Amino acid sequence: MNDIAQGVLDGVVAAGARAIRWLDDRDPRGADLVRRIFPATGRAQIVGVTGPPGAGKSTLTDMLVTELRSRDLRVGVIAVDPSSPFTGGAILGDRVRMARHALDPGVFIRSLGTRGQAGGLSRSTHDACLVLDAMGYDIVIVETVGVGQDEIDVVNLAHTTIIVGVPGLGDEVQAVKAGLMEAGEIFVINKADRDGYQATQRQYELMLHLREQAAVARDAGWSAPLLRAVATSGEGGKAIADAIFAHRAALEARDGFARRSGLREREQTLAILRERLIARALGAQGQAVLAEAEARRIDPYTAAGKLLAQIDGKDDLA
Amino acid sequence: MNDIAQGVLDGVVAAGARAIRWLDDRDPRGADLVRRIFPATGRAQIVGVTGPPGAGKSTLTDMLVTELRSRDLRVGVIAVDPSSPFTGGAILGDRVRMARHALDPGVFIRSLGTRGQAGGLSRSTHDACLVLDAMGYDIVIVETVGVGQDEIDVVNLAHTTIIVGVPGLGDEVQAVKAGLMEAGEIFVINKADRDGYQATQRQYELMLHLREQAAVARDAGWSAPLLRAVATSGEGGKAIADAIFAHRAALEARDGFARRSGLREREQTLAILRERLIARALGAQGQAVLAEAEARRIDPYTAAGKLLAQIDGKDDLA
Repeated sequence: MNDIAQGVLDGVVAAGARAIRWLDDRDPRGADLVRRIFPATGRAQIVGVTGPPGAGKSTLTDMLVTELRSRDLRVGVIAVDPSSPFTGGAILGDRVRMARHALDPGVFIRSLGTRGQAGGLSRSTHDACLVLDAMGYDIVIVETVGVGQDEIDVVNLAHTTIIVGVPGLGDEVQAVKAGLMEAGEIFVINKADRDGYQATQRQYELMLHLREQAAVARDAGWSAPLLRAVATSGEGGKAIADAIFAHRAALEARDGFARRSGLREREQTLAILRERLIARALGAQGQAVLAEAEARRIDPYTAAGKLLAQIDGKDDLA
Repeated sequence: MNDIAQGVLDGVVAAGARAIRWLDDRDPRGADLVRRIFPATGRAQIVGVTGPPGAGKSTLTDMLVTELRSRDLRVGVIAVDPSSPFTGGAILGDRVRMARHALDPGVFIRSLGTRGQAGGLSRSTHDACLVLDAMGYDIVIVETVGVGQDEIDVVNLAHTTIIVGVPGLGDEVQAVKAGLMEAGEIFVINKADRDGYQATQRQYELMLHLREQAAVARDAGWSAPLLRAVATSGEGGKAIADAIFAHRAALEARDGFARRSGLREREQTLAILRERLIARALGAQGQAVLAEAEARRIDPYTAAGKLLAQIDGKDDLA
């Protein structure tokens, strides 16, 4: 284990991959490893990239990696796909388009899929961010699929959140409107060479105006820019990278960078606690109660009450 | 409380609305109410409607409600929007298009928004399904936004899942491919009068063919139909309703209907237990540990371990 933790601290890719797998698998060695590497974390800027399917988030992430590498920064990418059954660090099929970074030692790409359990994915994602942070990556991009609760959990983990839109997707602004709208610190309209760009731009401008009036932005001290991009041709990468650094500087000027890191650790603590408590409640007797609920012989509130009572009767339950 | 439970059993709309709010707010009266109404549940068919943003799920749900009402069935609709901060039964702005059912006593529509907590939304959704079931609605449609983990949780709660696609959305089939693909029992291509319908239809046919070869469908005994719809003009409603009943009959022929209901109660039991355990762990001492984690003075695994130790030392903690 010490070798793996040391490897992570030394930035060894194989060690990082192993550490992420341990943590995603809930291997007990993962917890020990986090204790070892934690003092070396808190430096990387976590950047969330989210938006509706079809907005070109992967291509935009790819463009950003290229831009950040040209500035000599080391970049980690965590691709979060709640609809994918693949987990534990395998690079998904649709990641092949990022293959051009695969041989670059300054880039580390991992995919995380569903944990089959509410909240499990955002816990794994945060663990992976800590590992990449300890490995010395300057920026860790967390890219999501879709617009569900998992995505909101993920962007809430980021220092800086990029919302990617695209012209011509009718419900798109609507999909962004709540939850994610509050979190967005950089808005990008990708595929800006498409028909309908100006109409979409006006919708976003209106939305940002309404957001300002309603004063609901997560980061009240920051004026969120609306940028245009054509990620397939590399257009817009520079401006987005500049905005990422500008937001970091703005956060640091108000101690907001460390505060966001701290909120993540708080949420992570609760997520770990939740998983451990539930694991305890489900010994052999617990399984019998669950079977009663599954047979619909007792309602779920009564069943949960019985499980709680079982825990209370057993102090030595580990 | 007894009045509210009796009101639910009598199908009184105001009682149902109150019950759903109690449960969504985690009011203790909600748990007592579920105990009272539980014996009257297990009859309604829960139908999940999901698919990417822009597929027209709301309009399709509206069409289905009209079709089911024409068959003299009572219909409940729960609109689940994880990106919305509105919760507790308020009808969202975008629900106004369902206004034409608002005065029909055979239709009950509620919206549920984010709980701000992993898994909380699917727990509230299941509670609301139980209430509508006890009120005597024959079909409860659970309509989701987006394609995240929450949506997968929701469709896993349904007896029958409808996946709605739309021509011309490039990543759409991809977004459906895992997680949701396994769950789909009825596939509908909406907006079928649009350009690109035939290409999308071929993609879905191929996907369904691959799914059959891989034998990954959740309901292996059912051959999922691929239907076309133009929900804005009412086209396709009859065929979808027929497929819903055909799937119910197929499930019942193999005891699958009760089995799916039971799996829901099992998941719900775990969700309730998870929420109660975490609430216990967070007394005043617990908050101090969380503050340590938030200040990044201890790592989240160490913090979670301390919280567990606190629980173990306190038998009288309620």
